[in-house]
Amino acid sequence: MAKLLTKDNFVRRLRAEGARRYQDRHPFTILLNKGKLSEKQLQAWILNWFYFQKSLPLKDGAIISNCPIAVVRRLWVSRILDHDGYGELEGGIEGWLRFAQASGLDRQIVLTSKPISGVGLAVDSLLNFARKSSWIEGVATSLTQLFLPAVVDRRINALARYYNHIVKPEGLRYFLSLNAQARKDSDTALTLVIKYADSNELREKALRAVLFSEDVLWSILDAIYSAFVVRDSPLHEP
Amino acid sequence: MAKLLTKDNFVRRLRAEGARRYQDRHPFTILLNKGKLSEKQLQAWILNWFYFQKSLPLKDGAIISNCPIAVVRRLWVSRILDHDGYGELEGGIEGWLRFAQASGLDRQIVLTSKPISGVGLAVDSLLNFARKSSWIEGVATSLTQLFLPAVVDRRINALARYYNHIVKPEGLRYFLSLNAQARKDSDTALTLVIKYADSNELREKALRAVLFSEDVLWSILDAIYSAFVVRDSPLHEP
Repeated sequence: MAKLLTKDNFVRRLRAEGARRYQDRHPFTILLNKGKLSEKQLQAWILNWFYFQKSLPLKDGAIISNCPIAVVRRLWVSRILDHDGYGELEGGIEGWLRFAQASGLDRQIVLTSKPISGVGLAVDSLLNFARKSSWIEGVATSLTQLFLPAVVDRRINALARYYNHIVKPEGLRYFLSLNAQARKDSDTALTLVIKYADSNELREKALRAVLFSEDVLWSILDAIYSAFVVRDSPLHEP
Repeated sequence: MAKLLTKDNFVRRLRAEGARRYQDRHPFTILLNKGKLSEKQLQAWILNWFYFQKSLPLKDGAIISNCPIAVVRRLWVSRILDHDGYGELEGGIEGWLRFAQASGLDRQIVLTSKPISGVGLAVDSLLNFARKSSWIEGVATSLTQLFLPAVVDRRINALARYYNHIVKPEGLRYFLSLNAQARKDSDTALTLVIKYADSNELREKALRAVLFSEDVLWSILDAIYSAFVVRDSPLHEP
């Protein structure tokens, strides 16, 4: 029998296979990081990415509803709280909304406008995946967060340097808290995956789930690039 | 109570709302029709579209498995035969394979290579939709074929005029038979939808299913454009 893929090797494979398709390499991200986006293109990204942001608690709800292990459910419930906020603490959805407002978008428009269809398809396919797969694979989709801190650092730099005429400083607040969050969350997810995916078959499945999740992020950017860089689509439907 | 949307008005709304996003308007199709694609880009389209082609009998199987009405199932089974072929008659999958071969692609490569991930996501979301929606909505997704004849005519002209150094004449055979097929199939689908979607609520659902299906086609082209026009990705994984 093959030796069980260790945690270190699991992460190594994730980095090797995942890095190739991580959103940081997407042409849209490259434009963003180089300060080449127009105000409208930046806003289009913020507006459309909100649909992904909004879908996260639904995805996490699906993972919980598939999971028979109470300790895992309890860990995972905190994700939903992190997205939706609790008590005084504002969640990730509100954080993104404030980022949008600091970038000149109307709150009501962000809340009510629909994403372009390619973004809708991609995000919904992630939600679907979480609903239909095992909870371990659902948890594994969030391992894309392993790669997030480097991306967020570059994003903060780009926003502060190139887009400060569009994005007010308070708009960066969300991203400043995001890195600590992402490190904590991806640690938890990795621990769960390594603990419960206790065969190479399950670990391979988990690995494929992360790569699928990266493909989703990539597709979101494909659609945004097509609509707002290749073409000049309206920012939002009336 | 609101008057029932007539068949004519249903088709009129379909044309009005559908035409806006039909694949004919996509930047990739525009390049194709103007003869602006390189050999590799044309082959990339053929190779990746094959994944859509291959998924059609699975989609139709899902529609059948959701449908409790035997006369409808019997009508719909002929779709699967049309894709997979029967007796001496070659099906749509084989037709596309021959088109690929006539365009310089190796049959074995077409059969075994994976689509780029955005194409995979989009096609799988259509399959998913068919599995999870009512059979009427599943049937309605095929109403995009109403728009197909005009597209196919332009495609045949472009292939014959601009790409005759790439595509051998026998490669066009599949498209020449496609129009009659599409007219027959969309007539059947429209008849079924109008017969069984007997409330405005159901007709609206059917309408949304067609528009969703058009979004899928659009997203396939977004991904191909991103990978092979914006970037220069490898034609297929080794």
